Amino acid sequence: MNIILIDPTEMTDAGTVTLLGNRLRHIRKILRSKVGDSVRVGLINGPMGHGIVRELNREQATLAVTATIAPPPKKPIDLVLALPRPIMLKRILAQATSFGVSRIFLINAKRVEKSFFNASLLEKENLEGCLRLGLEQAVDTMLPELSIHHRFRPFVEDVLPTIAAACPVRLVAHPDTDLNLHQAAPGISGERTLLAIGPEGGWIDFEIEKFQEQGLTPFTLGSRILRMDTAVPALLAQIDLLGNLPPQI
Amino acid sequence: MNIILIDPTEMTDAGTVTLLGNRLRHIRKILRSKVGDSVRVGLINGPMGHGIVRELNREQATLAVTATIAPPPKKPIDLVLALPRPIMLKRILAQATSFGVSRIFLINAKRVEKSFFNASLLEKENLEGCLRLGLEQAVDTMLPELSIHHRFRPFVEDVLPTIAAACPVRLVAHPDTDLNLHQAAPGISGERTLLAIGPEGGWIDFEIEKFQEQGLTPFTLGSRILRMDTAVPALLAQIDLLGNLPPQI
Repeated sequence: MNIILIDPTEMTDAGTVTLLGNRLRHIRKILRSKVGDSVRVGLINGPMGHGIVRELNREQATLAVTATIAPPPKKPIDLVLALPRPIMLKRILAQATSFGVSRIFLINAKRVEKSFFNASLLEKENLEGCLRLGLEQAVDTMLPELSIHHRFRPFVEDVLPTIAAACPVRLVAHPDTDLNLHQAAPGISGERTLLAIGPEGGWIDFEIEKFQEQGLTPFTLGSRILRMDTAVPALLAQIDLLGNLPPQI
Repeated sequence: MNIILIDPTEMTDAGTVTLLGNRLRHIRKILRSKVGDSVRVGLINGPMGHGIVRELNREQATLAVTATIAPPPKKPIDLVLALPRPIMLKRILAQATSFGVSRIFLINAKRVEKSFFNASLLEKENLEGCLRLGLEQAVDTMLPELSIHHRFRPFVEDVLPTIAAACPVRLVAHPDTDLNLHQAAPGISGERTLLAIGPEGGWIDFEIEKFQEQGLTPFTLGSRILRMDTAVPALLAQIDLLGNLPPQI
C-alpha cells in the first residue's frame, strides 16, 4: 500500500476521514505514524495529496485530508482479456491496474471454462477490490474502466468495432505466429493500443479470424508458454517500450 | 505442467520411468491418458521427447521414454536479484525460469530483510522445485544456474566483475532515474545482458554506485511502483524485445 485510498463518500464536510480495518492497520503497523504525521492519500477517481493524522488509536484513525495533485496519466492501452481462473484474474487485474491500463474488457472464449463466470470474484465490489490493490501499489487513484462480456460473438461484432475505432494499434497475442511485437506493429509511437490476450489454451482459429476482421494483428512473445501473470506484464511492458521509442525508429 | 520432467537418475536401463505423486496425477486427471498414449516428457538438463504410457493405475504410471529433441535455447540474460520475501521469490523464480533466463544470482542489499535468508525456501531442493515449475510451464529442461550471496559487498567486488565481463549490456533497474530502457541501452541487439533488480524499497545510493563502477547503467520502467512479480517479467520482456529489434535501429 503505497498510497491510502479514500472513497469521496467517506469524507466529512470538514475535510476529514475516519479509517478502520486495513488502512488503520497500515497506518499503525507499517507506517508507524503518530498524531501530527503526514501520510500519502488519494481520493478514488480524484486527486492525490496527504492526510495529517489528527487522531490515532486501536479503533480508528482520523486524517485531515488535502488532495490537489493530479494522479499519474493512464497508459493508452485497452486490454481485452479472455476470462482467466479466479486466482489468476485477481492477480492480473491488480497487475494491469498498477501498470496503468485504461480499460479492461473481460470476455468469453471457446477455451474459457464456463464456471469462471460464476466466480464470486466477478461481483462488482470484489472486482473493484482487485483494481484498488493495483492503484495502492502504483500510487494512482483512477480506476480503469472494467466490463464483463459473457458471449464472444456479440462482444466481437457489436462492442469491439467501437473500441477498435479508437485504437490505431490493434494486436492480439497468439503463439501460432512468428511475428514478434516489433514486426507486428512497426513504427508505433504512443498511439492508443488495443491488446487482446487469450485463455490458457489460446484462441481458436475462429476467434483469431474475428479479431483479424477488426484489424487486430497476431504477434507472439516467443515459443515459451508463459503463465498469464507472467505474460500480461510482459506484453504490456513491450507495448509501453515500443510506444516510447524515438519516432525516427 | 506443459511437459513432464524426469530426473535422469529416475530412468531404468530399459528406458522406462515410474511416476508417482504430482506427475501421476497430471497424467491421470489432467491429460486423462490411457495405456498406449504418448505424453510430452523431458530429462532435467537433457533432451526432450515423449513417453508412451505402458502401465497406468492409481498407484503409478510407467512410461517408455524417447528423448532426442534439444530444449529451447536460453535467453542471453543474467539476473541479479535482491532477495525478495519468500512468497514473492517462489513466484519470481518460476517466472524468470519460464522466461528462459540463463543465470540467477540472489543477493543481499541494505533493504533486504535479514530474515529472508533464513527461509526454508532457500534450501536447495525447495529452490529447485521453483525452477522446475518454470521449466514445466515453458516446456524446457535446462535449469538456470542459481546462486545465493549473503553479503552485498563481497558479491559486487569479487563475483560481479566476472559476470559483468561476459555481459556487454549491463543494466540496473532503479526508479530514481529518468532513462527508459531504450535510452539506457540504445542499439543493443542480442548481446548478453546483465540485469540487476533491487528490493521493494529500492537500492541505496552506495549500491547504485557500486553497480555503476561495474558498468551497470540505471534505467526505469516509469514512475509507477510495480510489485516484484509484475516488474520482473516486464523488465525481462523489454530487454528481450529490444535485443531483437532489427540491427539498423
